[in-house]
Amino acid sequence: MQNKRYRLLISYDGTAYAGWQVQPNGISVQQVLEQSIKKGLGETVKLHGSGRTDQGVHAAGQVAHFDSSTKIPASKVAMVLNSILPADIRVLRSARVAPGFHSRKSAKSKEYRYFICNKPLLDPFMRLYRSHIRRPLDVRAMRQAARWLRGTHDFSSFCANPRQNIHSHVRTIISLVITEKDGDICIKIRGDGFLYKMVRSIAGYLVRVGAGEVHPKSIKAVLDSKKRTAAVPTAPAAGLFLWKVTY
Amino acid sequence: MQNKRYRLLISYDGTAYAGWQVQPNGISVQQVLEQSIKKGLGETVKLHGSGRTDQGVHAAGQVAHFDSSTKIPASKVAMVLNSILPADIRVLRSARVAPGFHSRKSAKSKEYRYFICNKPLLDPFMRLYRSHIRRPLDVRAMRQAARWLRGTHDFSSFCANPRQNIHSHVRTIISLVITEKDGDICIKIRGDGFLYKMVRSIAGYLVRVGAGEVHPKSIKAVLDSKKRTAAVPTAPAAGLFLWKVTY
Repeated sequence: MQNKRYRLLISYDGTAYAGWQVQPNGISVQQVLEQSIKKGLGETVKLHGSGRTDQGVHAAGQVAHFDSSTKIPASKVAMVLNSILPADIRVLRSARVAPGFHSRKSAKSKEYRYFICNKPLLDPFMRLYRSHIRRPLDVRAMRQAARWLRGTHDFSSFCANPRQNIHSHVRTIISLVITEKDGDICIKIRGDGFLYKMVRSIAGYLVRVGAGEVHPKSIKAVLDSKKRTAAVPTAPAAGLFLWKVTY
Repeated sequence: MQNKRYRLLISYDGTAYAGWQVQPNGISVQQVLEQSIKKGLGETVKLHGSGRTDQGVHAAGQVAHFDSSTKIPASKVAMVLNSILPADIRVLRSARVAPGFHSRKSAKSKEYRYFICNKPLLDPFMRLYRSHIRRPLDVRAMRQAARWLRGTHDFSSFCANPRQNIHSHVRTIISLVITEKDGDICIKIRGDGFLYKMVRSIAGYLVRVGAGEVHPKSIKAVLDSKKRTAAVPTAPAAGLFLWKVTY
């Protein structure tokens, strides 16, 4: 039986999960999806995601692939899996892809969005999807600081407790836009790849800039130091969404 | 010490609670609020809500009152309680009111909103706040049926398992508007009062009308029968919000 490759576009609420990747402790999104494939397609497969998301981080557009010899039409696989999956994980689309496609290796860029509720009160219905910062943030200062991050840099200063030995901490931030509307701030960041907790570290420092704790320009010295220090906090997981993977 | 009366405007995610009212089984929103008042104001009070909400039902604008001799300025009470309350319950505003004010008895009208996601997929981030109906609903037919409900009627047919003996099932629906945008349907219903599960029963029948199971006009016969039957299902709790209480 010839295996064919399938690509899934997935959205999930990360609140209840120990992250994307199968973990010794806690249930992972990947694991729940693999179980649904086993039940729905009758095959034990390895599901490859475009990248990990940490505990409590959400995804609006995670992409993953797997190989299967299923007879179910590719476009129907999403429906089959959704009938098995819990409501906090949805397969938005399923399709066949060329055997050379790889959800991680073929990715050209990824976009993350970090959402901040910058109002005195956090709407109870948004509590799982926003970081809540009560102090008014100066979005203009945050935008000034963000300019130093765009382009290709060694982002070691914005990489938290790396669990892996990687040969390079150089990444390219293609765009970094900060929007604000009625106290809802969104940091939209697109790059060719991201280090461990890089987006949350950038968000953490930008919040310090917005709060007036540090000068916008200070981010340049932090970046140049290539050393992660306590000056760079990791922003809470709840505000972060893996938004889109581009191929 | 003279007791003064305080009014709270409250928003809560009902998912984790057994409803508004203190229950023998499960934690109620009222109970959690009373505990926060005890902790924050140092007084054991009885908190009176404008009405109950059932298990899993949400509130964007519940109103409640209590009497206290606290020295904390009335407008600061909200802040004090929010510092104690879990994130799924927020006091949006606190104020002193005249001793004659009663959150339930003084209410002139209440508005509920029932939200339906009428798309093939329910966004995982909205799963706790929408009823999901996959079959395409005919909103025009739902609006036609809704016309029969406006005004003053005996709503016994839309009252589920009444737990209380009440002397009248006559209520006035002041307005009933159904909006639709990109597959998100909202039933906005305002009345002088509502029977037990009345809004969810109305939503349940309107969904049947929208799905083409019953003719819009059939709602008139259901209303006139003054008998609750299996023809009227109770729509799921997750879609329902107590939206606003008007005094």
